[in-house]
Amino acid sequence: MYTTILAPRVSETDAVGHINNTVLPVWFEAARNPIFSLFTPDHDFSKWKMVIVKTTLEFVKQVYFGTDVEIRIWVQKIGTTSLELYEELYQNEILCARNTAVYVNFNIAYQKKEAISEEIRQELRHHFIAQKEEEGTYDE
Amino acid sequence: MYTTILAPRVSETDAVGHINNTVLPVWFEAARNPIFSLFTPDHDFSKWKMVIVKTTLEFVKQVYFGTDVEIRIWVQKIGTTSLELYEELYQNEILCARNTAVYVNFNIAYQKKEAISEEIRQELRHHFIAQKEEEGTYDE
Amino acid sequence: MYTTILAPRVSETDAVGHINNTVLPVWFEAARNPIFSLFTPDHDFSKWKMVIVKTTLEFVKQVYFGTDVEIRIWVQKIGTTSLELYEELYQNEILCARNTAVYVNFNIAYQKKEAISEEIRQELRHHFIAQKEEEGTYDE
Amino acid sequence: MYTTILAPRVSETDAVGHINNTVLPVWFEAARNPIFSLFTPDHDFSKWKMVIVKTTLEFVKQVYFGTDVEIRIWVQKIGTTSLELYEELYQNEILCARNTAVYVNFNIAYQKKEAISEEIRQELRHHFIAQKEEEGTYDE
Repeated sequence: MYTTILAPRVSETDAVGHINNTVLPVWFEAARNPIFSLFTPDHDFSKWKMVIVKTTLEFVKQVYFGTDVEIRIWVQKIGTTSLELYEELYQNEILCARNTAVYVNFNIAYQKKEAISEEIRQELRHHFIAQKEEEGTYDE
Repeated sequence: MYTTILAPRVSETDAVGHINNTVLPVWFEAARNPIFSLFTPDHDFSKWKMVIVKTTLEFVKQVYFGTDVEIRIWVQKIGTTSLELYEELYQNEILCARNTAVYVNFNIAYQKKEAISEEIRQELRHHFIAQKEEEGTYDE
Repeated sequence: MYTTILAPRVSETDAVGHINNTVLPVWFEAARNPIFSLFTPDHDFSKWKMVIVKTTLEFVKQVYFGTDVEIRIWVQKIGTTSLELYEELYQNEILCARNTAVYVNFNIAYQKKEAISEEIRQELRHHFIAQKEEEGTYDE
Repeated sequence: MYTTILAPRVSETDAVGHINNTVLPVWFEAARNPIFSLFTPDHDFSKWKMVIVKTTLEFVKQVYFGTDVEIRIWVQKIGTTSLELYEELYQNEILCARNTAVYVNFNIAYQKKEAISEEIRQELRHHFIAQKEEEGTYDE
């Protein structure tokens, strides 16, 4: 599991009084930094690999300014060229949102999908969702 | 169909070279302004009704800076208290993303769901997705 | 004068109830699109020229969701390699913010400042602030 | 000195390849969270006090994705109803931007400025810029 702690910003609230819904995709992407580093270790954007294909985001509870949030990311599926992540957002230990994000490993220079290397797979496997279920923390 | 034209901003691009994926939820929400006005005509956020529950976003093509985008929104389903929208993003007449967004009509003061009024339903029905299919513009 | 009309977005409000102050730099930058096109007509970011050096932003009135805003940009000064803009933000014909932005014409490939071409100067001169003062629209 | 460490997000870069200039006001505001908590300890936005009046932002060096940034905030001046902050942004121990931000202590319910309480002044004085100069860390 990849874990990231973020402090909500005033600019991320909206006039309804909570964190605006469009901020959650920003936070989930921010929490993928260790995965981006795995695919593009030198952070050279001309060699960037991860291209997002689909997200499914469920809003469970309102998120508030004033208390840190924690984002937890698991690897749900590793395909030949694709990666599926399962992500949760907690505030005060309460689940506030769940997200899945599907990426493809894309070579921008050649404009085609590439197989995810065995080296990266090995690292990603340490974060498999199965791990989560075994630990009995699955929330549904 | 609700239609909104937006000009991409430099701040909405990312270092990979396109519009960052987290901007699309912002644009789709921006394009829902006429629907927000329907539910809260005076824009008084203390009486705000529309609370988002779920979004499913597919990224079909990259979106670029330099050319306007067009967002088209249809009503997919009107439940007793819920509203499901189907949304598309076009640039240069090419479909770049599709999104569904599920909202509930929520009374913040009473903290409970409310039935969507017949008056609002009538207006929403003018934007039914069925309309889209009849006109043969469905893109799949 | 370069003029841009923008519709405030719910995501741009904050919990205090207005447009968050950090949104104004985003809007002012968005309104500079015609100037960016002048310096980099093909929008190729690898040949991007305009690098921002300084901004001075005064918040005069709160800006609200629900009504379009208008941004007006004048050229205040054209140096050998620099460009100074004076910008105003109006909502309901009321001045809500003023900004100055200083840019340099920077060649990213060579990593050095470049003189602004005579061709660009000629175009920029049409938007000189002097024009504004002559027309008696200066607001102070 | 108030210090905040932030991890740049991919969504905060732009196609030129760096952190977009409009992100810096967002980060500086984020780093003011301890000051906001001082003025509104319960984070109740209906009792929010700090209203921004003016910012002056100088961009000294480009900021990159991939390395944390540090924001340092000092109190420059405490007026009867106003507060002036001096802020710096560092990446890899290099000064990348400086900002001043002027706030007024504003009572939203009564729609008027209020004197900053002696209790808050005492806390703010611990972060006076004079402190910085004495420690010889002033960078100019």
